[in-house]
Amino acid sequence: MSAVAVQMNKALFHALTVNQFDVPLIWQLIKRAEWLRGKSRDEARSRLQGKIVATLFYEPSTRTRLSFEAAVLRLGGSVVGAENARETSSSKKGETLEDVFRVVGCYADAIVIRHHDQDELDRAALYSPVPIVNAGAGSGEHPTQALLDVYTIWREVGRVDHLTVAVMGDLKYGRTVHSLLRLLAKFPGVRVRLFHPAPLGLPDDLAQELAQAGLSLERAPDIESCIDGADVVYQTRIQFERLAGEVDPKAASLYALTVSHLALLPDHARILHPLPRVGEIAPEVDSDPRAAYFRQVENGLYMRMALLDAMLGGDER
Amino acid sequence: MSAVAVQMNKALFHALTVNQFDVPLIWQLIKRAEWLRGKSRDEARSRLQGKIVATLFYEPSTRTRLSFEAAVLRLGGSVVGAENARETSSSKKGETLEDVFRVVGCYADAIVIRHHDQDELDRAALYSPVPIVNAGAGSGEHPTQALLDVYTIWREVGRVDHLTVAVMGDLKYGRTVHSLLRLLAKFPGVRVRLFHPAPLGLPDDLAQELAQAGLSLERAPDIESCIDGADVVYQTRIQFERLAGEVDPKAASLYALTVSHLALLPDHARILHPLPRVGEIAPEVDSDPRAAYFRQVENGLYMRMALLDAMLGGDER
Amino acid sequence: MSAVAVQMNKALFHALTVNQFDVPLIWQLIKRAEWLRGKSRDEARSRLQGKIVATLFYEPSTRTRLSFEAAVLRLGGSVVGAENARETSSSKKGETLEDVFRVVGCYADAIVIRHHDQDELDRAALYSPVPIVNAGAGSGEHPTQALLDVYTIWREVGRVDHLTVAVMGDLKYGRTVHSLLRLLAKFPGVRVRLFHPAPLGLPDDLAQELAQAGLSLERAPDIESCIDGADVVYQTRIQFERLAGEVDPKAASLYALTVSHLALLPDHARILHPLPRVGEIAPEVDSDPRAAYFRQVENGLYMRMALLDAMLGGDER
Repeated sequence: MSAVAVQMNKALFHALTVNQFDVPLIWQLIKRAEWLRGKSRDEARSRLQGKIVATLFYEPSTRTRLSFEAAVLRLGGSVVGAENARETSSSKKGETLEDVFRVVGCYADAIVIRHHDQDELDRAALYSPVPIVNAGAGSGEHPTQALLDVYTIWREVGRVDHLTVAVMGDLKYGRTVHSLLRLLAKFPGVRVRLFHPAPLGLPDDLAQELAQAGLSLERAPDIESCIDGADVVYQTRIQFERLAGEVDPKAASLYALTVSHLALLPDHARILHPLPRVGEIAPEVDSDPRAAYFRQVENGLYMRMALLDAMLGGDER
Repeated sequence: MSAVAVQMNKALFHALTVNQFDVPLIWQLIKRAEWLRGKSRDEARSRLQGKIVATLFYEPSTRTRLSFEAAVLRLGGSVVGAENARETSSSKKGETLEDVFRVVGCYADAIVIRHHDQDELDRAALYSPVPIVNAGAGSGEHPTQALLDVYTIWREVGRVDHLTVAVMGDLKYGRTVHSLLRLLAKFPGVRVRLFHPAPLGLPDDLAQELAQAGLSLERAPDIESCIDGADVVYQTRIQFERLAGEVDPKAASLYALTVSHLALLPDHARILHPLPRVGEIAPEVDSDPRAAYFRQVENGLYMRMALLDAMLGGDER
Repeated sequence: MSAVAVQMNKALFHALTVNQFDVPLIWQLIKRAEWLRGKSRDEARSRLQGKIVATLFYEPSTRTRLSFEAAVLRLGGSVVGAENARETSSSKKGETLEDVFRVVGCYADAIVIRHHDQDELDRAALYSPVPIVNAGAGSGEHPTQALLDVYTIWREVGRVDHLTVAVMGDLKYGRTVHSLLRLLAKFPGVRVRLFHPAPLGLPDDLAQELAQAGLSLERAPDIESCIDGADVVYQTRIQFERLAGEVDPKAASLYALTVSHLALLPDHARILHPLPRVGEIAPEVDSDPRAAYFRQVENGLYMRMALLDAMLGGDER
């Protein structure tokens, strides 16, 4: 195994936060995702042959869980899982997450977990005998979503640096946006325009952190000025029911992307969304070649395969 | 691949309703089920090697889910699943079924779904990049149950045409009965006798549809005259708790099949039940060779294998 | 296949209670666990190649379910499962467990079940066409836990006979303790010291049964005299919330094992716990080489592999 591969595997004993992923490592994962994509099903299945991955979802998420499980199966591994671990596991009896990892680590070669508390997750991972992959942690991080977002930007737009990115929706609670912006801040020349309901802006400390890391952040007064000429539009879901009394639900249309907006986007632009969507992208947009959100889902499969392969895969790459 | 096989695969891109299955296609599936039954475990496992099937159960049903999952595994495929998708999936967040199919279709080669709404299912399937198999849809269809019922009748009685079939229990809400009668109407000379509590008769429009399709339907006044001399008895469960005030729960015994009824049945007759049963077939009936309901379960495994193999299998048949 | 192996497989058509396991059979399983442990992943995967095991958990238990599922996968088998069968299965509709076994027995080659009622389980197993493995039955038995406990004692202490075993915690409701003591009673010279809150002592009939079987039982007045010089400390969890009004929750510390107690134990002693723990073993104890509870978990994987292999495995051993 080459020195670089060794270094990567070390950096990735766990995958808990986007902070672990510097630009060279991101490129390695993108290259690995492309490499796995080029393999036949049969070839890919040799990568995790005989390995077992546990998926523990303390917050149910069929979408993310199936994505990880399909990634494991495509690499030839097997899955044991808990789709509703908070209800069915011994955490309910008061067991610590440290103990959960030590126990499940006896059965599985890696643990993919969605847990509600990033701090608890980070602390417990120190005790895990096997790699832990964060599949979304409450209001914390969602590193694999950010990696697949960056992979999609690269694959669809051709580069990740020197881009204008319009980020819209719930920027306060959206951990997906937070993780993505932290990754984008590692690339040079990224300008971000933000558009969101007043109470759902980026948390101040995150905005400061991103600005210090070199990301250009600018708030847009409306959807048109936010997306006009952008290379990437990153739309997210707003839970208006959470904003009762603060924001008129009828205002939802102000934040929705429709076909009427497409004229503002250059041909090479791409529209991303972490999904699920509920109305913030009109279905008529789907048939536009710039609508990349379903290809983004497929990229997620390959990026998760790449990550698991880098962490657990049998041979060098 | 032969022209016939190609045609079949086309007819079966999705499997949503019994209307898709004409008599030649049903025979093909029965032949395929028998062919798979004759294979060793090792041989059968080459059929879906490397394929991934998702099982999404919006209404939990361990029985049907395990049947499909075992069918996939016996064919060498892998399964990703959600046993309680309504609670754990993003549908709860308002995502459309169209989007669910487009997303899960990035992870899996086919989707087996139990959903509560046949219309929504039919509409959403149009957007799915991968085959959808209806595993029971609310008050709608249950096509694979009807196929395995017909397979069982053929296997146990020797033919599907020119039969007298006694159908009993809940004929109003029983989607299983509805789908089965629609299939039987495609075969010549099938006479059906119905016996049910007054409020649980066949819906009028369905009775009309079946009569127009050539099925002979006749209501029997009691269980004895319903089953007397029948070739097939198809018993189903009645949810008396639903009928509070309409039907006396004590009347349940009027609709239950017991050993005392067996003398009315010829030796070649067979008793079927889609299961689960709660009391409408006495356990003492189980040891009678005409009790076919557990063999029916096993036939279900092979029929589901045949269907998945026809839709996804690697080579011609 | 040798005569002994045939005999074992007969004794083990089902695995419902520790009463089925006599000392020669226990040694066979321990030897088989060691033998499987010595195999490579690839070698082990040939044992259940093509076999399907169903896991039906009427009482959710992620820990035990994952242990069994990992055991099946490590042996090359496949799993279909229900992590919350009471909610999702047709038992909710009133189906008997007999029928569940007859149906699931059409899909799977064996059924691992956690059910709330040992009597119902024993009765229903008579009707199952495939082997049933009891994965913990309400206040009844937990035979595989007892087997892995004995395996751990042998592996860590070097023998199972002529031991002093300190058993602490909830001895009234703890089915784990009941099953373990029944197994230990089969070995000569085992002396057991018990320490527990007053209302949580061994049931009288069990204490009598064990004494008649030759087990020496003695109640200790405090934790120190219970563990002093013991070869094995078996600690269990107390649900103090169940004892409201009877036992002061502040008394919990009286029953907790801490580093201060370790000086009372010889170097060869071992501390076991069926887990999960909530505070009855201080985390500081974990780093002591005598703390064997996480190795016990790993032994559980191999013991369950051994049991499934003995019941279902392809060739002689």
